[in-house]
Amino acid sequence: MIETPYLLFLGDAPDQLAAKVAVGIKDWRPENAVGQFRMDGCNADLGLTDMTLVEAREAGAKTLVIGVANRGGVISQEWKKVLVTALEEGFDLASGLHNLLRDEPDLVAVAEATGRKLHDVRIPEVDYPIANGIKRTGKRCLAVGTDCSVGKMYTAMAMDAEMRKRGMKATFRATGQTGILITGDGVPLDAVIADFMAGAVEWLTPDNDEDHWDLIEGQGSLFHVSYSGVTMALIHGGQPDALILCHEPTRAHMRGLPTYELPSLEALRETALHLARVANPDCQVVGISVNTQHMSEQDATAYLSALEAEMGLSATDPFRFGSGKLVEALAAL
Amino acid sequence: MIETPYLLFLGDAPDQLAAKVAVGIKDWRPENAVGQFRMDGCNADLGLTDMTLVEAREAGAKTLVIGVANRGGVISQEWKKVLVTALEEGFDLASGLHNLLRDEPDLVAVAEATGRKLHDVRIPEVDYPIANGIKRTGKRCLAVGTDCSVGKMYTAMAMDAEMRKRGMKATFRATGQTGILITGDGVPLDAVIADFMAGAVEWLTPDNDEDHWDLIEGQGSLFHVSYSGVTMALIHGGQPDALILCHEPTRAHMRGLPTYELPSLEALRETALHLARVANPDCQVVGISVNTQHMSEQDATAYLSALEAEMGLSATDPFRFGSGKLVEALAAL
Repeated sequence: MIETPYLLFLGDAPDQLAAKVAVGIKDWRPENAVGQFRMDGCNADLGLTDMTLVEAREAGAKTLVIGVANRGGVISQEWKKVLVTALEEGFDLASGLHNLLRDEPDLVAVAEATGRKLHDVRIPEVDYPIANGIKRTGKRCLAVGTDCSVGKMYTAMAMDAEMRKRGMKATFRATGQTGILITGDGVPLDAVIADFMAGAVEWLTPDNDEDHWDLIEGQGSLFHVSYSGVTMALIHGGQPDALILCHEPTRAHMRGLPTYELPSLEALRETALHLARVANPDCQVVGISVNTQHMSEQDATAYLSALEAEMGLSATDPFRFGSGKLVEALAAL
Repeated sequence: MIETPYLLFLGDAPDQLAAKVAVGIKDWRPENAVGQFRMDGCNADLGLTDMTLVEAREAGAKTLVIGVANRGGVISQEWKKVLVTALEEGFDLASGLHNLLRDEPDLVAVAEATGRKLHDVRIPEVDYPIANGIKRTGKRCLAVGTDCSVGKMYTAMAMDAEMRKRGMKATFRATGQTGILITGDGVPLDAVIADFMAGAVEWLTPDNDEDHWDLIEGQGSLFHVSYSGVTMALIHGGQPDALILCHEPTRAHMRGLPTYELPSLEALRETALHLARVANPDCQVVGISVNTQHMSEQDATAYLSALEAEMGLSATDPFRFGSGKLVEALAAL
């Protein structure tokens, strides 16, 4: 659990894209973002107040989050100066970088001396149990994809936001590093030991109110041979009541696997539902989320209408057209 | 890779069952078992020559394998004396115990001083790649189960032995600690980081002669919610040409999951084949391996005959009736 709110560290980000994590925090959890910290040469801007470390502490920020991808995979000496000062000023640090904070002896020494925490969200901090498969109270929705990177996190985030706006009980459950940094909590599922994957998902989505929905961030795809085991653990550990099918219609092949074609949405529906019902016999597919970023608005609308007719399910692009349809389908369950 | 042959350490095993790993080595790789080392109070006996450490070294043994489950989960002081002397005598040590050899400072110190190796086969020793899904040469057979612990390892071991007896090219590929200790090599798949599971299986079963078969040890079950992700990674990382369905007909519920019923063999066939064809469109189910230990011989024979008629597949209990039928089905592919 990372203490919120945050000061978002943009460092010397070469462009806005390099600050993707910070953008995600600001878009999805603006209440977590007290301000931004930019160094000389920073070309990213979240539109938040630029703050010194002292100003951010005074404004209530508890953790400095590295919201930017670093150059060359290493934490530079320029960054280091800011990070050390932040620890001394009373901030915890949180990072999703490959270059772990805990592998930097000077940061570790200062964190120990000052009693601050270093959160490397790529690394599990919990000893997860083996899954027990016992039915939990409350409801769970999982986004599953025809491929990796088709908008599963975005879909769950958008539904969570829409549901809370409508006064429904909902919690986004992060299973990847970006989601964990955005919300301050979650399971870095791809870094969990095989035997404990499903147990980690059970741990992440515990008993809850009967009318509460966990929106579980999906990972990988049942049809992506590199990561399908992770997806399988989400389906059985999450014991979802509802599945959302996620798709990107213009992709020529599975991400990173040039000889693998994407499955059809029908194939995904059948396969995912069949497997999900092992853990939850009442599971239903409730809707389709399509990433239409590479289609014109007209083409996107036509595609979604055709899909709804073909599949008999609500279909939308939550980024372009909102997630209302998916939330309504969930509420109708 | 553990150096063979072995001296099998039985310690103070309270009974034969406690020496299960040693029994497996002696049954499946007798050429790896130079002799046994028993302490006062040992109630297990493999029927091998009792040897001192010096005698075993003279007979060519390279590694002392802890072939026994320890009491209370800790390595006792009595064991420790033998293990330290073994390192000093020039043996490597290999163990599948929860209590890791590497967590014992005195063993680590002696191993470093003598240049010997400590193999904890529960822990991966390789940085496995992310799976790339590229089709490999050679053939692969994977055992999949309706449940955990239904005889998948035994089936693959028995087929491997039978195939080599018949002059076929075959290699058993261990994915669990017992199999790794038996053969001296393999991947402890349940201890691999989630993102690398399928890549570890690809690494374990590389390109080979066109007429060579890898017999891949299965793990878990697609229908066991605690471990299904591991099974999924085997199916996609192994890209099997052939599946063997494994079953134990008298089991009342899934192992460790009292509210979960076992799937039918038909359900296993459909689900596993459908998923396997994502990675290998030519995959076929070739036979059924039934663990009939809780059935009379008459009942077992009748059950297997009925199953063959129902499923249209060869069915046998490889322990009771040999694995010939399965090997013939594989050869006929």
